[in-house]
Amino acid sequence: MPDVLRRARSAVGPEIERWLSRLAPPVRLVAEYHLGFADPSGRPTSGNGGKAVRPALALLCAEATGADAATALPGAVAVELVHNFSLLHDDVMDRDRERRHRLTAWALFGESGAILAGDALLNLAHQALLEVPSPARVEASLTLSDATARMIAGQADDVSLEADDAVTVERCLRMMADKTGALLAGAAGIGAILAEGPERSIRSLERFGMHLGLAFQAVDDLLGIWGDPAATGKPAAGDLRERKKSLPVAAALETAGPGARKLRALLTGPELADDGLAEAARLVEHLGGRERARDVAQDELGRCLSALGGAPLADAARGELEELAQFVVEREF
Amino acid sequence: MPDVLRRARSAVGPEIERWLSRLAPPVRLVAEYHLGFADPSGRPTSGNGGKAVRPALALLCAEATGADAATALPGAVAVELVHNFSLLHDDVMDRDRERRHRLTAWALFGESGAILAGDALLNLAHQALLEVPSPARVEASLTLSDATARMIAGQADDVSLEADDAVTVERCLRMMADKTGALLAGAAGIGAILAEGPERSIRSLERFGMHLGLAFQAVDDLLGIWGDPAATGKPAAGDLRERKKSLPVAAALETAGPGARKLRALLTGPELADDGLAEAARLVEHLGGRERARDVAQDELGRCLSALGGAPLADAARGELEELAQFVVEREF
Repeated sequence: MPDVLRRARSAVGPEIERWLSRLAPPVRLVAEYHLGFADPSGRPTSGNGGKAVRPALALLCAEATGADAATALPGAVAVELVHNFSLLHDDVMDRDRERRHRLTAWALFGESGAILAGDALLNLAHQALLEVPSPARVEASLTLSDATARMIAGQADDVSLEADDAVTVERCLRMMADKTGALLAGAAGIGAILAEGPERSIRSLERFGMHLGLAFQAVDDLLGIWGDPAATGKPAAGDLRERKKSLPVAAALETAGPGARKLRALLTGPELADDGLAEAARLVEHLGGRERARDVAQDELGRCLSALGGAPLADAARGELEELAQFVVEREF
Repeated sequence: MPDVLRRARSAVGPEIERWLSRLAPPVRLVAEYHLGFADPSGRPTSGNGGKAVRPALALLCAEATGADAATALPGAVAVELVHNFSLLHDDVMDRDRERRHRLTAWALFGESGAILAGDALLNLAHQALLEVPSPARVEASLTLSDATARMIAGQADDVSLEADDAVTVERCLRMMADKTGALLAGAAGIGAILAEGPERSIRSLERFGMHLGLAFQAVDDLLGIWGDPAATGKPAAGDLRERKKSLPVAAALETAGPGARKLRALLTGPELADDGLAEAARLVEHLGGRERARDVAQDELGRCLSALGGAPLADAARGELEELAQFVVEREF
C-alpha cells in the first residue's frame, strides 16, 4: 500500500473523529461505527475505515502545487465525509448488508439510523470546510457541492440502470464519471484550490482525479464479480446478485448475440443461486466483458498519468500520485 | 392566510424551480413532484408546495432589520430546500404515504428516488447560498449548517422516542426545539444576517424563530391526532397510528396513572384499527394531553411575540411577524 494512504489516514482520522464528536449521540454512534471508529455498542475500535484514497488525493494535490499537505486537511476531511455519506445511503438503496467485512450501518441500526447518519456527514462536510472561512475555502466548498451533485446524479443513474435493458458501455462510462469520477476529481481540485495553486495545475489535477476515478470504478466493477470476498469484504459476485449493470455486464450485453440474450435472461429472471451466479459470471467473461473492463482500467490509468503532464508539479508529489494511481488499478490484476 | 406567505411563495417558487432545473432528470422529477411543481409524470402543475413559513420568516427578518426582502432571497430559498430535504427523508423513515393531499415521493417513486432527491436538495441549499459568495453569505451558510445539524439530531431523537417508553414532556420539548425550532430560528437568523442587521436584532429574531417553531410543532402535534384530513392532507390520527410520542401523548403518559397505563398498552400493542385510534385519542384528551399541547402553543406564542421586544425592528415587518405567528398557532383553535 502506498505510504500516502497511511499518511492520509493518520492525518484525517483524528480530525474526522473530532468532527463526529459534535454529532448527537444516536447519530454519532452510527457514523462512528460506519467509519470504523467504534463497534456496534460504541466501544472504540482501531478498525478499518476504508482506504482513504480521496483524502490522500487532496493532500497530494496540495503538495503537488508546492504547498504543505496540512493546507488541504479540511478539504481531505470534507471529501472523506461526503464519500462516507454516499456509502451510508447507497448501502440502504442497494440493500447491501456487508462492507469492509462488517454488517452495513442500515443492516445493524436500521434504515432511519443510516439515512440520518448520512445526512449528518454531508452537512458536517460543509462545516469542516467553512468553519474558518477564506476565499479558497469558499471556492473549495463550491467545488465540493458541484462534485456531490454529480455523484448523486450518478447514483440515481446507477439505480435506474438496474431496471433498464438498454445499457451500453458508453452510458455506463458516463454514469461512472458522475458516480465515482466527480468526487475524485473534486478531491484533487479541492486540494489544489486550498493550496492556492495556479488554475492550470488545478485543471490538470482534476483531470487526473476524474480518470483515476474511472479506472478505480472499472476495477471495482471487476471486483464486484470476480473479487475474493476475503479481500473485498463484500459477498462474492455481489454485483450480479444485485443485477447491477456494471461495466463488464454492459460490455457483455452490448455484444447483442445469443450469449447476450442468455445473460439478459439470467439477469432478469428469478433471483440467482450460486450456480446461476457462476454461470452469469462465465458468460460475462466469455462475451468479453472482463477483458473490456480491464482495458478501460488500463486506458484510464494511462489518461490519468498523462494528465500530470499538463502543468508543472512538484516532483515528489507527482511520483506519489503516479504510485497511488498504479495501486488503485493493480488491486485487481 | 397572511399576505407574507403569498409574497414568499411567489418570490421563492421561481427561484427554487430555477435551482431544480440544475438537477439530473430522474432526481429533478422527484424533487419537482415533491415540491408541487410537477405531476408524477413531470407535467407542470400549479400545485401546493407547502405554506412557505420558513422563507417568509427569512424575508421578513431581513425587512425587520431595515433591508429589502430581496437581500434574503438566497437564504429563503436555501431554508426551504433544507426543509424539503428533511420532509423527503422523514417520510421514508416514518413510512408516511400522504402529504399535501398527495402520495409522498417515496410511495410514488420508491425509497431510492426519495433519498436521492433529499440528498440533492440539501446539497443544492448550499449552492444557492454560496454561489455568489460574500462574508454575510458564508455566515448564513454556517448558520444553516448548524440549524441542519440540530434538525437531524431532532429527527433522530423523534425516531428513537417511538420505541422508548420513558418519554416526558421535557424531553419532547427538547426534541421539538431541535427538530422544528432550530430551522425556524435559522431561517430568521439567516434573513437578518444576509441583511447585515445588528447582532442584537439577529439574536432577537432567532429567539422569535425558535419559539415560533415550538408553537408550530405543538399545533402540528395537535393536528397529528385531531386534525381534519381534508385540511391537513394527512391521514386521520396519523401520529397515533405511527405511535409517535408527540407532545399530547407525552403529556398524557406523564400522568402515570391507570389511564396512562391503558394508553401505553394501546400504543405498544398490536396495530390499532379506527376504533382503537379513536379510543387512544379520547384517552390522550381525557388525561389532559390536548390541553397541555394547547397551553404549550399559547405559551410559546407569547415568548415568540415578546422576543420581538429585544431589539429595535422596522414596524411594518414587526407587524407581519406578529401576524405570521398568530396564523401559525391559529391553524388549530
